[in-house]
Amino acid sequence: MSNQGNSTLQPTAALIVIGNEILSGRTQDQNVAFIAQKLNNLGIILTEVSIIPDIEEIIIQKIQILSKSYSYVFTTGGIGPTHDDITIQSVAKAFHVPLELNQSIAKVLEDECHSRGIPLNEARLKMALVPKGAKLIPNSVTHIPGVSLENVYVFAGIPIIMRAMFEEIIPLLNHGSPIKSQTIQGYAREGDLAAGLTQIQQTYPQVDIGSYPVSSDDVHSVSIVVRGTDEKIIASATKEVIDLMRQYGGEPLLGSVNKNLLQPNKS
Amino acid sequence: MSNQGNSTLQPTAALIVIGNEILSGRTQDQNVAFIAQKLNNLGIILTEVSIIPDIEEIIIQKIQILSKSYSYVFTTGGIGPTHDDITIQSVAKAFHVPLELNQSIAKVLEDECHSRGIPLNEARLKMALVPKGAKLIPNSVTHIPGVSLENVYVFAGIPIIMRAMFEEIIPLLNHGSPIKSQTIQGYAREGDLAAGLTQIQQTYPQVDIGSYPVSSDDVHSVSIVVRGTDEKIIASATKEVIDLMRQYGGEPLLGSVNKNLLQPNKS
Repeated sequence: MSNQGNSTLQPTAALIVIGNEILSGRTQDQNVAFIAQKLNNLGIILTEVSIIPDIEEIIIQKIQILSKSYSYVFTTGGIGPTHDDITIQSVAKAFHVPLELNQSIAKVLEDECHSRGIPLNEARLKMALVPKGAKLIPNSVTHIPGVSLENVYVFAGIPIIMRAMFEEIIPLLNHGSPIKSQTIQGYAREGDLAAGLTQIQQTYPQVDIGSYPVSSDDVHSVSIVVRGTDEKIIASATKEVIDLMRQYGGEPLLGSVNKNLLQPNKS
Repeated sequence: MSNQGNSTLQPTAALIVIGNEILSGRTQDQNVAFIAQKLNNLGIILTEVSIIPDIEEIIIQKIQILSKSYSYVFTTGGIGPTHDDITIQSVAKAFHVPLELNQSIAKVLEDECHSRGIPLNEARLKMALVPKGAKLIPNSVTHIPGVSLENVYVFAGIPIIMRAMFEEIIPLLNHGSPIKSQTIQGYAREGDLAAGLTQIQQTYPQVDIGSYPVSSDDVHSVSIVVRGTDEKIIASATKEVIDLMRQYGGEPLLGSVNKNLLQPNKS
């Protein structure tokens, strides 16, 4: 899909996950799969995910390169009050604009601090600094917004907040044709199916056919996933995969179209 | 750390996760956190993770760029028998070497197929093709090895196999000073701690201090993580973090040194 058929009509995206805690293995990322699934449904092709440390030069460079290469760039992480939260300032530098104090965020922070009896100190006020020309992304969870500038959307890293922010920006994105998928699972060996799958992929270049062994045990169960934007073509390719699987295994099980089960990594 | 202190003495690494199934959100990656933790313990600084699709040009380009930039490059995914498994051929092209049939792998495949009564077809034999000059990485799970070429190590994507392969190559890597970490958790607000944390970070540039809110709820609990290679400096910085936290919260809880709890993404 990303390299085939009607992909030129689909918007593209990159995701930058910013955080030493992911690169140290302390934190298991939960944001990539969520954003990937959402973009699929919106018909936006996620082509690259980059996980990078809290280092300003690296963040700036990555934003500059990816924002030129893709329709949209999303970032997660690094927008809190502490010294290691440097995403917003890096976005400003990437686009050569200054940071400005946003009065509406300052007011939110002021009210919040007042109601909790805590001081509105410099660290907290840092969260009211936004790049000049940026738009705010509402945050229904903690009320401190994310920002967008040009084609870059800056989200919090905490999954519940990131998800709330993502929902807000959906209407702002150009959508493509939703990417649908059909999973065909059965007891068969990848090595038996491979030649037939290659042929089916060649017959239907408009879809992407992926083959994912379910286990590494002796009895092999495999999931074949057919992905594309045209349900008729998906159905035709799926029928051929079913016929192929029947030659080498039992009766395949069909997942519902567009079922996105989270499964372990493939071979 | 990656930008500070004695980092120049530490080997560096990048990880390339190859697979449409991660970029579509179908699969939750489990390999990044494992490899990240292992590299930490080996004193190898993981500086970049790139998740890319099953597209040959993209894989080739990424391998070429990253293998020049880092001491080591690891890849996961795309080494099975099906049409979407193109990692090995991409590595060969990245280093401008041909693929060769490896007789020892061919023998493993032959024995395996014979004992299971399945044909050693062309798709299965594809798994015996390795780049000229590559070394094999033993696979104690399914016995079909990974490969390494120059500073690039090619692992399977299935976590249990990837882990077995990773253990095999540990003796081949140049190790740095293991990166240790101390977690200090307590009921405090990031906004209260921020100024003090900035000062502690400035006092101890040899460590990385990260601040991770545990929840987005009203009562804020925060984890401060001090990472570095020198236990004495970690201990000194930790003591200052504890003193700081006592000013703003209750008695902090200490994680054991080098405790790597998997926690949700940060802000």
